[in-house]
Amino acid sequence: MATKIKAGIVGGAGYTGGETIRLLLNHPDVALTFVHSRSNAGNPLYSAHADLRGDTELTFTDSLAHTVDVVFLCLGHGESKKFLQENPFPASVRIIDLSQDFRLGETVGDRTFVYGLPELNRDAIRQASNIANPGCFATAIQLGLLPLAKTGALGEVYATGITGSTGAGQKLQDTTHFTWRANNISAYKTLTHQHLREIKRSVAQLQPDFAAAINFVPWRGDFARGIFVSSVISTALSLEEVIKVYRDFYQGHPFTVVYDDVVDMKQVVNTNKCLVGLEKEGDKVVVHTAIDNLLKGASGHAVQNMNLMFGLEETAGLKLKSIAF
Amino acid sequence: MATKIKAGIVGGAGYTGGETIRLLLNHPDVALTFVHSRSNAGNPLYSAHADLRGDTELTFTDSLAHTVDVVFLCLGHGESKKFLQENPFPASVRIIDLSQDFRLGETVGDRTFVYGLPELNRDAIRQASNIANPGCFATAIQLGLLPLAKTGALGEVYATGITGSTGAGQKLQDTTHFTWRANNISAYKTLTHQHLREIKRSVAQLQPDFAAAINFVPWRGDFARGIFVSSVISTALSLEEVIKVYRDFYQGHPFTVVYDDVVDMKQVVNTNKCLVGLEKEGDKVVVHTAIDNLLKGASGHAVQNMNLMFGLEETAGLKLKSIAF
Amino acid sequence: MATKIKAGIVGGAGYTGGETIRLLLNHPDVALTFVHSRSNAGNPLYSAHADLRGDTELTFTDSLAHTVDVVFLCLGHGESKKFLQENPFPASVRIIDLSQDFRLGETVGDRTFVYGLPELNRDAIRQASNIANPGCFATAIQLGLLPLAKTGALGEVYATGITGSTGAGQKLQDTTHFTWRANNISAYKTLTHQHLREIKRSVAQLQPDFAAAINFVPWRGDFARGIFVSSVISTALSLEEVIKVYRDFYQGHPFTVVYDDVVDMKQVVNTNKCLVGLEKEGDKVVVHTAIDNLLKGASGHAVQNMNLMFGLEETAGLKLKSIAF
Amino acid sequence: MATKIKAGIVGGAGYTGGETIRLLLNHPDVALTFVHSRSNAGNPLYSAHADLRGDTELTFTDSLAHTVDVVFLCLGHGESKKFLQENPFPASVRIIDLSQDFRLGETVGDRTFVYGLPELNRDAIRQASNIANPGCFATAIQLGLLPLAKTGALGEVYATGITGSTGAGQKLQDTTHFTWRANNISAYKTLTHQHLREIKRSVAQLQPDFAAAINFVPWRGDFARGIFVSSVISTALSLEEVIKVYRDFYQGHPFTVVYDDVVDMKQVVNTNKCLVGLEKEGDKVVVHTAIDNLLKGASGHAVQNMNLMFGLEETAGLKLKSIAF
Repeated sequence: MATKIKAGIVGGAGYTGGETIRLLLNHPDVALTFVHSRSNAGNPLYSAHADLRGDTELTFTDSLAHTVDVVFLCLGHGESKKFLQENPFPASVRIIDLSQDFRLGETVGDRTFVYGLPELNRDAIRQASNIANPGCFATAIQLGLLPLAKTGALGEVYATGITGSTGAGQKLQDTTHFTWRANNISAYKTLTHQHLREIKRSVAQLQPDFAAAINFVPWRGDFARGIFVSSVISTALSLEEVIKVYRDFYQGHPFTVVYDDVVDMKQVVNTNKCLVGLEKEGDKVVVHTAIDNLLKGASGHAVQNMNLMFGLEETAGLKLKSIAF
Repeated sequence: MATKIKAGIVGGAGYTGGETIRLLLNHPDVALTFVHSRSNAGNPLYSAHADLRGDTELTFTDSLAHTVDVVFLCLGHGESKKFLQENPFPASVRIIDLSQDFRLGETVGDRTFVYGLPELNRDAIRQASNIANPGCFATAIQLGLLPLAKTGALGEVYATGITGSTGAGQKLQDTTHFTWRANNISAYKTLTHQHLREIKRSVAQLQPDFAAAINFVPWRGDFARGIFVSSVISTALSLEEVIKVYRDFYQGHPFTVVYDDVVDMKQVVNTNKCLVGLEKEGDKVVVHTAIDNLLKGASGHAVQNMNLMFGLEETAGLKLKSIAF
Repeated sequence: MATKIKAGIVGGAGYTGGETIRLLLNHPDVALTFVHSRSNAGNPLYSAHADLRGDTELTFTDSLAHTVDVVFLCLGHGESKKFLQENPFPASVRIIDLSQDFRLGETVGDRTFVYGLPELNRDAIRQASNIANPGCFATAIQLGLLPLAKTGALGEVYATGITGSTGAGQKLQDTTHFTWRANNISAYKTLTHQHLREIKRSVAQLQPDFAAAINFVPWRGDFARGIFVSSVISTALSLEEVIKVYRDFYQGHPFTVVYDDVVDMKQVVNTNKCLVGLEKEGDKVVVHTAIDNLLKGASGHAVQNMNLMFGLEETAGLKLKSIAF
Repeated sequence: MATKIKAGIVGGAGYTGGETIRLLLNHPDVALTFVHSRSNAGNPLYSAHADLRGDTELTFTDSLAHTVDVVFLCLGHGESKKFLQENPFPASVRIIDLSQDFRLGETVGDRTFVYGLPELNRDAIRQASNIANPGCFATAIQLGLLPLAKTGALGEVYATGITGSTGAGQKLQDTTHFTWRANNISAYKTLTHQHLREIKRSVAQLQPDFAAAINFVPWRGDFARGIFVSSVISTALSLEEVIKVYRDFYQGHPFTVVYDDVVDMKQVVNTNKCLVGLEKEGDKVVVHTAIDNLLKGASGHAVQNMNLMFGLEETAGLKLKSIAF
């Protein structure tokens, strides 16, 4: 590749900002041009992300270069739309937004957004100028449901998911205090998690008459990274048929791997992969899915979308060594 | 109490044996008379349970005193029945079996067993000579379902539960290797966990026509102690009505506490308590239950049963300081 | 015991306040009379300490009963002295202060304080009206050094210690954020920890000419409860002689147990015990000590002191079930 | 690079074997030619390393290709020498041995080994045919001591280090049982760790008259990956002078980063970096070092040595995304 893609990051001091920096610094086809953070402007990146000391001397900036090719918005929910209204980039600059501001069809100025789930919308992503990057739980749940939705036979879903503390961001909170969270499990947003909206939208894209409930109980886990979801669904298909449906659906998608077996979460931590494990008992199929909430659930997914938008190899810069242990 | 109850423990070197020792050593009305362990005979208890050094000089024995009042069997599944066949205690000795050997109505010799869930069978337990102590997941799930079953209106259940590594015992296994289990989540025995049998039996005791499925997905958690279960059930009752049903059911039961709110698992770790948290959204009630798998899920439950059998205060020796943090 | 000791707690919403509540609620000889907390006044104790729900309906108060027998001050460092100045209890009310305000001989009004380390000052504690309860690291380190100091031959000390997150209190901080602290180790206050002052004072009490350095490197651990310290000291004594020195020193002290072997921290978590493990190689003895930082390191130690002050069994209310696993 | 280096791995089913596979699969200049494992021959790599499913279809083999350029020996201590005796590769095949078999000058056949610590022996490594890869604790401790040794003024060292469970390998052991190790700290091999031999050898290489003791207390930590060491040393140098000594020593070494401050371990987990944090108080300098025990402590270090031996960029294939959180 002759010329590198010039990329900027807005909101670079948070967790997804940090992960996006880490990925882009090592991406073979990208030049990280600016990392915007109003509160950290002038400080080296490693002042906020200590692990980067020795890797880069780049500093945070509070000015925005408009000559970049792509901007990653790593802002809080509600802040991305406001930011783009106040800082209208030229139309030639592509936007990848990691917040939930544009996942349900919202627009800003002339910008319309493609929902950036490559396993669902890869062709559209390749043509897109703006991407609404999926939510973390939304990714893990959808990748467990979409193949069945494509058969037109997805019924009511009962899903329980557990997430690492990084899903709650870096703000200090009672529920991310080490003393409280260590060795603890708790439920939150029972049946009301905001990601259900984007999940239902994607399901309806494949199965327009889907009208059943998706009952989702999210749990807080006592680990920092990862999401694990088990979804229970009634189906008339045999396990072999279910496996074929999933394998066909994910054929050619490099990051989503289907198992005819259980899976464990740590296999994907620090990678952009999604594991899908399938089991069946009686008339119930159980789909286990596992992702790293900050990578396939956020920043890795965003870089995957960038790769597609710019015609790069889909896996460029994303062949990451898993933590493994 | 003038005379102390003389208690023996069989299988005292394992986790539930250790917990039973810890409880009985501090129990105001019990004299721990023998701790049987063939493989450890002659060694001090603290050779297997290092935390007991300084607390007791008692040693394991391979002989069985028949003059005790009660024997706790802390053996592996399948071993209790065999043990009682080979070592028939006098009829006057009461048996509390922590295995699953007698939970479904099985007998040995003249001994018949009462299922030792005080919240369900307290009066029968008070009269019982032999107790089949409930399973850990079985306890957590039943305490979440029984009040609804008593209304006669329990329907299909979708439950996900997570358990600490102590639930898998002290045998070295791939799934209890620290390197694998730390920061990991995995599913096992999906929809086929053996505790479903005793759960269905208890539900049928209250709601004889119950014919719906109890879909249970167990997960391995990355902590040592505790169980957390979220069960999703359709109901026509309002949240207020559900809360009343649960509060009425557990009225007078000292260890089971009903919340009209979420609960977190660590509140009960190292105690004999069960927390029941209730939420409702649409037509679904979600019941969260939390116990310590080794106490209310095993040894604490067993001592609670002993207290009832011998007419002691139900909470004697079981007012335990929680780990809290 | 005919009449129960009436006890009050000031600063009952924090970690050491919570632990003191948990201990006193179950103490056979104590009536918990008030729990003072300005910010929580009127709320039930379980609003701050969720695990107490179901155990007590007591509420926090902002008024101070002067008719109690003993008050535990569970306040931040610097606040105890101020509190006693503003709220002078009658001389008949004994004070046990868990802060560091009175550990170096400080006084307030007529009150002078005995340093509440029973293994060092048991007779004085029995006569004391006011106790300065030792610090957590100070307890773990001193119990590893004092027997050698008593021989008059303690030399330079190199100690490294690790503490759980509860040692940092319940205030939200970057270093107690779960995401940062999980699976992490870090050093802080290298060679300058404030507990060195009280340690040196106790050493000098036994070995007045001690002039060597105590080099202490504290680490933050990725667990909630517990302290583990390894101290390396040159000595001319053989291992057998060292062991005898320690065993003699702790003879008759119920909570401190000497091993001629290594020890592991979790054996003492949720107990009031201190383990002392001794090893020797060449001319160096290595003393490993382990305590629960909130119990033998704070609230349990305070209750032990209360027991001594009021002529109770030293272990009353402190025979706690360890977490064990 | 026109032709890729052909690399083989012997002992590919263990932890260091797995990490070496992960690194070489993504290395731009290497073709992973064979992965030898007698017990797993014929099975896919992902049968032993589940995270590799979807990444490679390579299988384990029990035959050894002699046409490779380099072989990594990931065998247990004592097995490497035996393996090379029984399987003499042609002299043209370079060997990188991760065991301790050749770290003290041992030879096998005509093969002599260079101690593979690039910060000490980079020029010799570039010329070497055979590398003895350093131990994990040895790496962390040496990188904290060598700059002072080079000044000729290193004195007695008091070091405490903590290691993750992966340091103990994948064999099931009591001390790697999750139930025991979670939330626990313990000491082992106090003052007698086998890595002291190679540490003293390297120190003597820079300071031939070094005769003082290196007192090292290793601890087992409750995490899977990482090593953190704090070393206390008397020195006449000021902190500024010490920092200059360390910065000069590591000038041009890409993986070792010197801080004039504390460091925390998790910054380096899943990377090949070593952090060196320096503090001073009185006449004592405290050197904190942190590495990932499986990377800079084993497989990453081995690949770094391979890069040097074959004239590649020293960091090729080793710019790894840290776990960060």
